[in-house]
Amino acid sequence: MNNSFQLKGNLCFVDEEKKLHLLENKVLVVKEGKIDKILDDFDFHSPLPVIDRSGRLILPGMSDLHAHASQYPYHGIGSDCELLEWLGRHAFPTESKYQDLSFAERAYEKFSEDLRKSYTTRISLFATLHKDATLLLMKKMEEKGLRGYVGLVNMDQNCVEYLQEKDAESALEKTEQFIQQAAEFTLVKPIITPRFALSCSEAELKGLGELSIQYSLPVQSHLDENPSEILETARLFPGYKNYSDIYYRNHLFGNPNKTVMAHCIYNNEEEVEMLKDNGVYVAHCPECNLNVMSGIAPIRKYLDRGIHVGLGSDVSGGSNLDLTLQIRALMQVSKAYSRLVDSKARPLSLVDGFALATIGGGSFFGKVGSFLEGYEADILVIDDHPESFLLPFSLGERLEHFLMRADETTLVAKFISGRRVL
Amino acid sequence: MNNSFQLKGNLCFVDEEKKLHLLENKVLVVKEGKIDKILDDFDFHSPLPVIDRSGRLILPGMSDLHAHASQYPYHGIGSDCELLEWLGRHAFPTESKYQDLSFAERAYEKFSEDLRKSYTTRISLFATLHKDATLLLMKKMEEKGLRGYVGLVNMDQNCVEYLQEKDAESALEKTEQFIQQAAEFTLVKPIITPRFALSCSEAELKGLGELSIQYSLPVQSHLDENPSEILETARLFPGYKNYSDIYYRNHLFGNPNKTVMAHCIYNNEEEVEMLKDNGVYVAHCPECNLNVMSGIAPIRKYLDRGIHVGLGSDVSGGSNLDLTLQIRALMQVSKAYSRLVDSKARPLSLVDGFALATIGGGSFFGKVGSFLEGYEADILVIDDHPESFLLPFSLGERLEHFLMRADETTLVAKFISGRRVL
Repeated sequence: MNNSFQLKGNLCFVDEEKKLHLLENKVLVVKEGKIDKILDDFDFHSPLPVIDRSGRLILPGMSDLHAHASQYPYHGIGSDCELLEWLGRHAFPTESKYQDLSFAERAYEKFSEDLRKSYTTRISLFATLHKDATLLLMKKMEEKGLRGYVGLVNMDQNCVEYLQEKDAESALEKTEQFIQQAAEFTLVKPIITPRFALSCSEAELKGLGELSIQYSLPVQSHLDENPSEILETARLFPGYKNYSDIYYRNHLFGNPNKTVMAHCIYNNEEEVEMLKDNGVYVAHCPECNLNVMSGIAPIRKYLDRGIHVGLGSDVSGGSNLDLTLQIRALMQVSKAYSRLVDSKARPLSLVDGFALATIGGGSFFGKVGSFLEGYEADILVIDDHPESFLLPFSLGERLEHFLMRADETTLVAKFISGRRVL
Repeated sequence: MNNSFQLKGNLCFVDEEKKLHLLENKVLVVKEGKIDKILDDFDFHSPLPVIDRSGRLILPGMSDLHAHASQYPYHGIGSDCELLEWLGRHAFPTESKYQDLSFAERAYEKFSEDLRKSYTTRISLFATLHKDATLLLMKKMEEKGLRGYVGLVNMDQNCVEYLQEKDAESALEKTEQFIQQAAEFTLVKPIITPRFALSCSEAELKGLGELSIQYSLPVQSHLDENPSEILETARLFPGYKNYSDIYYRNHLFGNPNKTVMAHCIYNNEEEVEMLKDNGVYVAHCPECNLNVMSGIAPIRKYLDRGIHVGLGSDVSGGSNLDLTLQIRALMQVSKAYSRLVDSKARPLSLVDGFALATIGGGSFFGKVGSFLEGYEADILVIDDHPESFLLPFSLGERLEHFLMRADETTLVAKFISGRRVL
């Protein structure tokens, strides 16, 4: 029973009420990949093996609700572009390379290996429109024990000639094949992925919605990211009452299937209601939103309204798979929003950020992101080198110091559903 | 001649017109600690030793115009406070510990050692009000070959009882002793450092201005950082026309001596003119300004007006000595400013940020921050692991990728005035 053990250390996690728990040197009991209970000390009568990491920080794994695996080769490049220019100059040329499976092999090997070494234990990924390369990405993740969703990206209009599906019909056929072939994987699952409304014909959107229902698959896309994109979308889809409605009326917006929409910066009031009513997740990508100059999403408002929110690295509009960077960016942009836009919007705290990175985004994947009974045992063991501290930090301060300064060399072990992957 | 050599690699630097130069595998000739010239290849007839770092990135050292060495023990803590709360909860309690020289020994050893390993080659530091601890910091920097200014912090009012000078007279006497004792150091120099107007009596400000003139010393302080601070300052100093005027009329604002003011977020038009007229440097600390929710400084405007601007890590309002983090934050906040406050303010680019981090702040210390003839040979050698790139990055893209993703493990050598310190 590799995925059953007792692990002792400083447990730091957020519960379903978003309350922070800081438990010094307690024992997390994991049975068959799930959290069973928390004990004061090891139960030496139990047959479960003991792992003593006293003094280390033990955190739930983090969930990345939005990233483009295919864009990873140019992460950290293109910082001087706005969204639409950035797509043309960087995203599309790189994504077109995945037609070549030998490029895909090298690129996805590096991506999945870096993902393995990151704080992320669950992720929802965009690949490209290339079916075989996308299946290869799934295979690599599966082999490394990584879990999450991978989307074959649909885009049959308004893209560049060298990176666009021929027509809706063949695209939908390819997508259905992808779904069927992806059934061989058990840790990584397919997700329906219209790139964004602009790049999909109505026929394609409609077909994708039908596939989502037929195969009970979740959905991911982009929504209300950039003012120019929103204007252009309204022009192209005059028959819909707003951007969200394009997805909604094509069965790509929540109920019955789970949906995550990246960004949601400029949703109007009607669209905010639609997020709430349909249980749609918002993937907040604060660093990317700064990098490509999209703006600042009103996350405090979404949380107050009970809308589901998680974090997205948005590689490679974001520079880095490290989700602690998004926690820092989230706090910083929400303070800027409070200072510059709406002084009544209380800034998000470090605990808010930690909550979104763990249970907030985690719940998109099931019972993920906490140490409550029955949760998946996604666990990070962190050595924050307390011997180097000059002040007597409390456990809460150690957690803060780690989240504010993290570099991935501090990650000494990582478990996904109780299986050690690092 | 340890500080004379020929160094080959990919030279990346900005000149006095803020133009970026990218020179692939050229040779930087350093004579007696200064840049002599750039050659196409090694001159093997020259007696100067050759150092071949072909393929690596060779950058000018970075200058940090604002940091509190004494606050380093709690870097990465206190992210949920605004400025004045943050001072009371974190800054003052920590700074008071430097009365104990054994604490100062440990804390400044760690600070100066981390500084040695950073991208920074020149720095202007706040210590605390404790003379002996401040001299100890200077000694440690000198021993490690680090250069810059260190300020004994003056604060004789409105602070906490346990961290406040008794009166202006004894404070000025202590400061003059500090200046005289600091004369033993050659690489590190003293700088006049009223903490900020709020914490100094008029008698102290006047006396500090006189010391600055008498000993020809530069000056550093804080200016227009936070709305509450500005209101309180106006209330306490009713006889001055604005915040800057308090420093100006006490000879603590530029000409004849160099002055650097941290933050400058809310300077009114008259104060902007005063910055310009008096050649005052602005230390832009974008991450700290987000962290303690101060706001966003109008840096594009300052640059357009020809005001000197450099970057400040502002440890520990900033989380990190790494100035590349400030380059990223600078770009991000300036994009947010453009999007949310003034759409006419063109965002700062990566090259703008690189310029501010090198020659922009460097010029506060003399001819520092470029590879032009006669400049101090402050040099970073960076291994950005180009073998790991999946795309054929140009040299400009490699520089961008490094600045956007830097971690200090990439720094393989560092020279200050031609002397190797790492």
